[in-house]
Amino acid sequence: MKIEGVDLFYLSMPEVTDDADGSQDALLVRVAAGGLVGWGECEAAPLPSIAAFVCPKSHGVCRPVGESVLGQTLDDPTDIARIAALVGYNSMDLLQAPHVLSGIEMGLWDLLGHKLGEPVWRLLGYGRSYAKTPYASLLFGDTPDVTLERARQAVRDGFTAAKFGWGPIGRTDARSDADQFAAAREGLGRDADLMVDVGQIFGEDVASAAQRLPSLDEAGVLWLEEPFHAGAFEAYRALSDRGAAVRMAGGEAAHNYHMAAHLLDYGGIGFVQIDCGRIGGIGPAKKVADLAVARGATYVNHTFTSHLALSASLQPFAGLADSRICEYPAAPQALAIAITANHIQPDGHGLVCAPDAVGLGMQVDTAGIAPYLVDTEISVGGRVLYRTPAL
Amino acid sequence: MKIEGVDLFYLSMPEVTDDADGSQDALLVRVAAGGLVGWGECEAAPLPSIAAFVCPKSHGVCRPVGESVLGQTLDDPTDIARIAALVGYNSMDLLQAPHVLSGIEMGLWDLLGHKLGEPVWRLLGYGRSYAKTPYASLLFGDTPDVTLERARQAVRDGFTAAKFGWGPIGRTDARSDADQFAAAREGLGRDADLMVDVGQIFGEDVASAAQRLPSLDEAGVLWLEEPFHAGAFEAYRALSDRGAAVRMAGGEAAHNYHMAAHLLDYGGIGFVQIDCGRIGGIGPAKKVADLAVARGATYVNHTFTSHLALSASLQPFAGLADSRICEYPAAPQALAIAITANHIQPDGHGLVCAPDAVGLGMQVDTAGIAPYLVDTEISVGGRVLYRTPAL
Repeated sequence: MKIEGVDLFYLSMPEVTDDADGSQDALLVRVAAGGLVGWGECEAAPLPSIAAFVCPKSHGVCRPVGESVLGQTLDDPTDIARIAALVGYNSMDLLQAPHVLSGIEMGLWDLLGHKLGEPVWRLLGYGRSYAKTPYASLLFGDTPDVTLERARQAVRDGFTAAKFGWGPIGRTDARSDADQFAAAREGLGRDADLMVDVGQIFGEDVASAAQRLPSLDEAGVLWLEEPFHAGAFEAYRALSDRGAAVRMAGGEAAHNYHMAAHLLDYGGIGFVQIDCGRIGGIGPAKKVADLAVARGATYVNHTFTSHLALSASLQPFAGLADSRICEYPAAPQALAIAITANHIQPDGHGLVCAPDAVGLGMQVDTAGIAPYLVDTEISVGGRVLYRTPAL
Repeated sequence: MKIEGVDLFYLSMPEVTDDADGSQDALLVRVAAGGLVGWGECEAAPLPSIAAFVCPKSHGVCRPVGESVLGQTLDDPTDIARIAALVGYNSMDLLQAPHVLSGIEMGLWDLLGHKLGEPVWRLLGYGRSYAKTPYASLLFGDTPDVTLERARQAVRDGFTAAKFGWGPIGRTDARSDADQFAAAREGLGRDADLMVDVGQIFGEDVASAAQRLPSLDEAGVLWLEEPFHAGAFEAYRALSDRGAAVRMAGGEAAHNYHMAAHLLDYGGIGFVQIDCGRIGGIGPAKKVADLAVARGATYVNHTFTSHLALSASLQPFAGLADSRICEYPAAPQALAIAITANHIQPDGHGLVCAPDAVGLGMQVDTAGIAPYLVDTEISVGGRVLYRTPAL
């Protein structure tokens, strides 16, 4: 097959807020080859990502992503790796390239799965897709009471694991944060898995982050996610070495395999969290999953958007029985729900798994997303380089 | 002062080729505050960078760069660091952000220099601006004869140092590459500094890169630049450990301080090459220069575009007497020459230095660049977010 078309769709809620909620907009990707289509989703700013696909080239290794994808042969998984490497080289100096490539690469896997009649996880070499414990991804409330209620609601919703993130943590003092951690634990009950995400709030300030370790341990928190800038390996390592039970987690910002590997090798993180919509797609994510196994660390997906992205994010570690936890967008915006006609629902035991269906196993609902489509047009030098395609 | 305006100008040669020549287009930035203007230049794909400045926000930490810059106070260098940190946090998930920030940050230093009546290097804390040996940045020819002639021309042009890059190196065999290295040395003569840049051609393949070490040493090459993917620290370290005299160089792709620091600390490079048009501007580059001194490594600028970019790139290591070599765009496209009315010319000894003039010391030639201005328009949801501003 030849890749005949790549269509990018900018979708958005009518209003986008400053909340750390990545489901407020989306860049959906449709790839076409051999009479089939595949779908993927970039976890990325839609407009710069579209621009990275269509921009005029600046020089030999700053070419638009589209140039390295359109017209390429796609017959087996090695073609996907070859195309990704081509983008990596030809768009070396185009910083946004991995973010738009991510959704395209997912779409290629989806399409190839349909072509070969296999789930993507099987194309990745796994013999089966293990069920995972989904954790609700929630935001801390402005007060511990709000957090407590959110935790209780997660339990009522059937979750046995939850991650609280962002909100006021790190913005006032360690005691206030301790109250938040305790509220989350109280709401979830003693046996649930509780994780905490602080969104790089401490920059590189190990001392401030370390003040939170006793209360994190007291609340039985499994991991502390992104205490620091994703590149501050020494800070991650130093905090890990403080002797707390809570392990460090990070990796969502990794936009290539190396960045995730460095967090494992130099940062000493215990959980590596990969967003297939950023790291360049499913292929590099699988490579990180393999490395995590080799390092005795645990792979976890990072997913805050649609169930298309969720399915894609489950594939790279579907076959790893010991990586038992997965991020599950518990309260996404209506747009994220509308993207797919089917959804990955917890089974009778509250567990989810990568679909046992061809490709990514998700049906994109083109009628459902039409109301969210954002008309976009880019012209350069009098030539229209991008205009929102028909769904 | 308040930052009242940031204008982005997409400039391009009429034809852009696949050559590894970054001077074929440019994204020029004009910042305005307190009745003054400052100029900077992004070494980046213009269209995605413009999009990163104007895009609608996706969520709290995926906001357009403009939102964190416009309206901010600018009175002293700490304001520039504060604004850069704000962009870093608010645009954490916008991958292209550091590339557009780079040009803006340069413009802020230029403007502040005019406001305070000081060269930027003085605002960075340096007492004087040391002269540097400019090296001609040249491309290998398709054959050793072409390379030989280019080296001879560099000598005729007054250069005592040259770096050859890209072209056929790494694409055939080690013997052919050896002929190229020898031709460059022959053309330059015995005493000139010779450096080689292979543009990540070896990926992570240490063995292939190592085959070139004997001929690099035979040609007396000072550094081997970017043999590998910028994130392949282990490969850099492994090649360094092969015992050759030639040192490894890298860093041009660093889009934040951490990436450059990791190449020094984990990759073991001997020369760290920073492009102020990519790393986030002059501030983070200065931080890398300080680290290089602490590590016993040598800071070098990476500059392949205009003399505005060249001046900006000289500032962070202007005061380091021991960092004696600087990259100097020897054969840029007409566009890159047209950007400034004045140029940084070698003195009687063939040396160049950061201008002893306020700001960056360069006069942008708005009439000269007008012919290269590329009309660009971006509209989202029926609203025009960007239209090429008046020069």
